[in-house]
Amino acid sequence: MTESSVGASQARVGTVPDDEDYRQAVVELLGAIAYGELSAFERLAEDAKLAPTLEDKVAMGAMASVEFGHLERLHARLRELGADPFAAMAPFKRGFDDFHAHTAPADWYEGLIKAYVGDGLAADFYREIAAYLDADTRDLVIGSLEDAGHSAFVVDRVRAAIAQDHRLGGRLALWGRRLMGEALTQAQRVAAERDALSALLTGGVDRPGLDLAALGRMFTRLTERHAQRMDDLGLDA
Amino acid sequence: MTESSVGASQARVGTVPDDEDYRQAVVELLGAIAYGELSAFERLAEDAKLAPTLEDKVAMGAMASVEFGHLERLHARLRELGADPFAAMAPFKRGFDDFHAHTAPADWYEGLIKAYVGDGLAADFYREIAAYLDADTRDLVIGSLEDAGHSAFVVDRVRAAIAQDHRLGGRLALWGRRLMGEALTQAQRVAAERDALSALLTGGVDRPGLDLAALGRMFTRLTERHAQRMDDLGLDA
Repeated sequence: MTESSVGASQARVGTVPDDEDYRQAVVELLGAIAYGELSAFERLAEDAKLAPTLEDKVAMGAMASVEFGHLERLHARLRELGADPFAAMAPFKRGFDDFHAHTAPADWYEGLIKAYVGDGLAADFYREIAAYLDADTRDLVIGSLEDAGHSAFVVDRVRAAIAQDHRLGGRLALWGRRLMGEALTQAQRVAAERDALSALLTGGVDRPGLDLAALGRMFTRLTERHAQRMDDLGLDA
Repeated sequence: MTESSVGASQARVGTVPDDEDYRQAVVELLGAIAYGELSAFERLAEDAKLAPTLEDKVAMGAMASVEFGHLERLHARLRELGADPFAAMAPFKRGFDDFHAHTAPADWYEGLIKAYVGDGLAADFYREIAAYLDADTRDLVIGSLEDAGHSAFVVDRVRAAIAQDHRLGGRLALWGRRLMGEALTQAQRVAAERDALSALLTGGVDRPGLDLAALGRMFTRLTERHAQRMDDLGLDA
């Protein structure tokens, strides 16, 4: 039995929140993260085919497996919350599938950047949301974000390739901007459709939330971190 | 850090055999298993796209991740043996890639059967070979074969589908025979090309091996177990 397999055997025992709106919001959030991890697994495994060497393929495969490995704990917690994990994931299928359909990498380097930028964006976003969660859920969400140190591999490969071919840098910089745009488009659509999840950010009757100014600052932080990641890769944001 | 990621952090400390021919044979065997697991991971992740439901997709994804999760220990042992894991895997690329190219499933059920029959055949074969290995390597090889209990899921799905559509049973029975034929063809080709690996089976100066009659009995056992698996699925072998 590895951590990659999905079951309830290692379920953490957590509490179920009394507040039904909050419980529903957490179910939506965990469903979104779980579907996001499943679709990331699928796309990374697919994009691993573009790898020029076996080493690169294994590195990309490892990133895919890490994503899949998070599903078990997310599913266990969803069950604790009285939700069917698959029903909880289903509403997010369209948003993530559309994102991936619109951002199919044309080559290995686009795949690498998508893995790095997409994973980084998702991690930043979930970390921002984590501030509004109970401790149990927060630990689970943060634990789902570890990337097992594969980022260094991407930075290394991309910088080496750009050093050899400067035109590649220009193309990949545009690609990075497109990934950011598609991610924001889909995130906005999901937020518009999922009331409970949006309420987490905007607050509830007895829960503080973000006002519009705070929401604006959050997006500024997300954009700044994206720019930093592009810079790490040697690309213009 | 999950078990799915690849690195040397959890390397077992084992001995390096004095016999150079034997060391080379083990390097070839572990290289073959490692490439087989990597290609199984890729194909299972690909075939998971055919899944009719999210539950099925996650079950197939779990099988893919289990395969990938074995790579780390195999690579660690290859390094201990003084081999480059990727160089050790490379000679087996063609055989496994050809097998998969010739057995691309046409639908979800063909994918399920391929996962079940392919995994079972590989496991039987490696278990047969394990009898000729030192204790360290044997433990490693046997440990690479656990399927984390996903077989029950395949049997369940296939039997239910056949019960609903008897013609499907006929088609899938033919498919199972083709899988067996392709696997034997590729295995034979690999054995013909890899001297050290073949010598493991046929013996060395101071190591007993299989004579032709024993080799025949081994293939009979493999065929019988394949027939048993087809029977478990409700299919004619």
